Amino acid sequence: MNQIDTFVEENKERFLEELFGLLRIPSVSPVPEHKEDMVKAAEYWKDLLLKAGVDNAAVMPTAGNPVVFGQKIVDSSKPTVLVYAHYDVMPADPFELWTTPPFEPQIRDGKIFARGADDDKGQSFMHAKAFEAMLATGTLPCNVKFMIEGEEEMGSPSLTEFCIVNKQMLQADTILVSDTGMIAQDTPSLTAGLRGLAYMQVEVTGPDKDLHSGLFGGAVPNPINVLCKMIASLHDENGYITIPDFYKDVEILNEEDRIDLARAPFNIEVYKHALSLNEVQGEAGYTTMERTGIRPALDCNGIWGGYTAEGSKTVIPSKAYAKISMRLVPNQDHHKIAKLFTEHFQNLAPKSVKVKVEALHGGQAYVSPSKNPAYRAAVRAYETTFGKKPVPVRSGGSIPIISAFEQILGIKSILMGFGLESDSIHSPNENYPLFNFFRGIQTIPYFYKYFVEELAAK
Amino acid sequence: MNQIDTFVEENKERFLEELFGLLRIPSVSPVPEHKEDMVKAAEYWKDLLLKAGVDNAAVMPTAGNPVVFGQKIVDSSKPTVLVYAHYDVMPADPFELWTTPPFEPQIRDGKIFARGADDDKGQSFMHAKAFEAMLATGTLPCNVKFMIEGEEEMGSPSLTEFCIVNKQMLQADTILVSDTGMIAQDTPSLTAGLRGLAYMQVEVTGPDKDLHSGLFGGAVPNPINVLCKMIASLHDENGYITIPDFYKDVEILNEEDRIDLARAPFNIEVYKHALSLNEVQGEAGYTTMERTGIRPALDCNGIWGGYTAEGSKTVIPSKAYAKISMRLVPNQDHHKIAKLFTEHFQNLAPKSVKVKVEALHGGQAYVSPSKNPAYRAAVRAYETTFGKKPVPVRSGGSIPIISAFEQILGIKSILMGFGLESDSIHSPNENYPLFNFFRGIQTIPYFYKYFVEELAAK
Repeated sequence: MNQIDTFVEENKERFLEELFGLLRIPSVSPVPEHKEDMVKAAEYWKDLLLKAGVDNAAVMPTAGNPVVFGQKIVDSSKPTVLVYAHYDVMPADPFELWTTPPFEPQIRDGKIFARGADDDKGQSFMHAKAFEAMLATGTLPCNVKFMIEGEEEMGSPSLTEFCIVNKQMLQADTILVSDTGMIAQDTPSLTAGLRGLAYMQVEVTGPDKDLHSGLFGGAVPNPINVLCKMIASLHDENGYITIPDFYKDVEILNEEDRIDLARAPFNIEVYKHALSLNEVQGEAGYTTMERTGIRPALDCNGIWGGYTAEGSKTVIPSKAYAKISMRLVPNQDHHKIAKLFTEHFQNLAPKSVKVKVEALHGGQAYVSPSKNPAYRAAVRAYETTFGKKPVPVRSGGSIPIISAFEQILGIKSILMGFGLESDSIHSPNENYPLFNFFRGIQTIPYFYKYFVEELAAK
Repeated sequence: MNQIDTFVEENKERFLEELFGLLRIPSVSPVPEHKEDMVKAAEYWKDLLLKAGVDNAAVMPTAGNPVVFGQKIVDSSKPTVLVYAHYDVMPADPFELWTTPPFEPQIRDGKIFARGADDDKGQSFMHAKAFEAMLATGTLPCNVKFMIEGEEEMGSPSLTEFCIVNKQMLQADTILVSDTGMIAQDTPSLTAGLRGLAYMQVEVTGPDKDLHSGLFGGAVPNPINVLCKMIASLHDENGYITIPDFYKDVEILNEEDRIDLARAPFNIEVYKHALSLNEVQGEAGYTTMERTGIRPALDCNGIWGGYTAEGSKTVIPSKAYAKISMRLVPNQDHHKIAKLFTEHFQNLAPKSVKVKVEALHGGQAYVSPSKNPAYRAAVRAYETTFGKKPVPVRSGGSIPIISAFEQILGIKSILMGFGLESDSIHSPNENYPLFNFFRGIQTIPYFYKYFVEELAAK
């Protein structure tokens, strides 16, 4: 595979220039104003795949943002790897916290800074370039398909339908995804599980109009105070979520599994220091790793109501709002959880207010079996380029579509993430180290090689 | 006084046109962008007073927005009435809830609709026009001074200094203010007391940057959830405020006073219906009127943090904020309360977060003695034009400067309000009925007449 290393080394500058072109497109899917940028990013990907050498590529419409599909069929009797990734990114606000503008990529301290530098433009790009390198060096051992969507950061609302309609076209032996992280540059890890998600929005209405807080304060339900009380009651003093039956289906790991999971290197002082925290906080009886890996969680992602500008306005607002999401673990069904949340939140409300609850999106948790060929191939690939066996990790994040793939296409996914915790994905100053970017491009061809071997050996 | 009625009748259209000119100026004091509009509104008032016939008028600078001062000295041996009002208004947002734009006044259903139509442009205007009418008809019985400020909606930060510096110029026998309400068009009332105010802003910081709620959810302090828990704990299950020593100085009314206060007509069903509430909410053991009249209250006036736009962003924000104000009753000192709040809120915070508390502004509560000449003159004036004795009312609102006047100038104020609860002050679709506007202009000259009589009889 030295040919590949040489090819990558010779094309480094071009790879980065091409990635920067993609990073410059503000393809922010949750914000409707960026609709045209979504199409631009999709077209950019299509051209990228065609230049890399796919047989054909197309920007395919959906009810939402288009999906880019491309494929290289070297021999229909050979195995097929389906690469899944997304070209959409999270909103970049608050803009004032970025050192350089989010859509003007820049390299500083050996890292690429931009919205999407890691999640998922940077990581997905490694696959395009690894494919190009394998093709250019004659080392591509199997067929490859690419499915790059534009709604992952919104919970992939159109991709389920896309998979149903295009099931035949998407046939493959494994789905390969780089949209997760690894523990450290010297500690490769493999995401063995993902949490699910139920994302809700709530609205509390007190009086039917904004009121003067002097004339009415003390006598009418203030929707902000009521909402705070309702949200506060969602956790008990031990950090447990109080929604009835919330934990009913939670997968309980045995002691052995918990010990295995605890093998991942983790230093609580380093963790706290990295976030400038005096103390961590969470469910009693679990470690920090367990709290994000194998236990569900409930977090407010946004809250707003009343006067929020400079100065002081003495108002009792009519309405207050919050976005509240729950991270779920295997066996918890997001539809069921959304229903439990809705019922509980309605029940919590005092009679003096009206409450609306809406489920914005959801996805199921996922577990990757360590015995299947793709998992074993990934372990060997990391071991080859990093010189170490990857540590299995249960990630706290969600890629809701991963469990949908299994249900619709009948294909398991393998999550080979190369991101670092310090990459600040979804946050200001998102970045991706050049080391990870190029090491990823080197590692992916080994996955292809070993995957074909593992399948043959089965 | 029939001459005055005739003068008002003949000049009705002009009065409204001139008022509309003032209402068109968006003199929103809490928003720095409106700085120039403040000066425009002040100049407008100066011209208005000069045209009405004052001896002199000036726009006088302060550290903040200017104060308009004008006076008519008919005979220095005669009593002097000092009219206090404000030309600034509250922000008009949310704009989308206004039927017609807030700064384009319109008459509909016998009411003037505009930001400031009641509070306080409409109400203050009655004084300019009553003065003009008395002067035009030769019925002005005493000296008059006008002091119109531009920072009332921000807590009058510059007026205290203005009063100290201009104490001599402001000498008067009473301060006359129309910045409060009356019970109904057929039930005049006189504001015998006002609540004080302590307005705070709080900031809770969890991690030092926004985090992905999947990767970190369940393991780190979420500042929104923490803030909600802290705010929720500020009231107990009976609606009592839990800040230690908060009630220590509260004036406790005896049974007789409570019965007297309960004379004001009040229908809880009408009240609930007007606000579309199923139930009211407040401190146990007190009526709705008492909750806003003689009891302190704590309300969130604004809350914000995390992602608040359309769609779903899975973020744990670094910070969450709230504006929290407390309405105070006689004997509660707002400086002391701000200090108690700050200490308590700091103590409430779990170790995992950092908390900042800032006092944005404050003012003392006020009580108007029913035995002084101005109070008796006001009672007689209402009785003359409304045919009914006004009901004494403790208003829940605050005019922090009123107690400052007493401390600095040694002058008591009389609060002759003509607004209605349905005027939606500080809210979308603020309005002021033409009936109240013109009845106010008719009532004010009687106050002048009776005030001079009451003083002479003393």
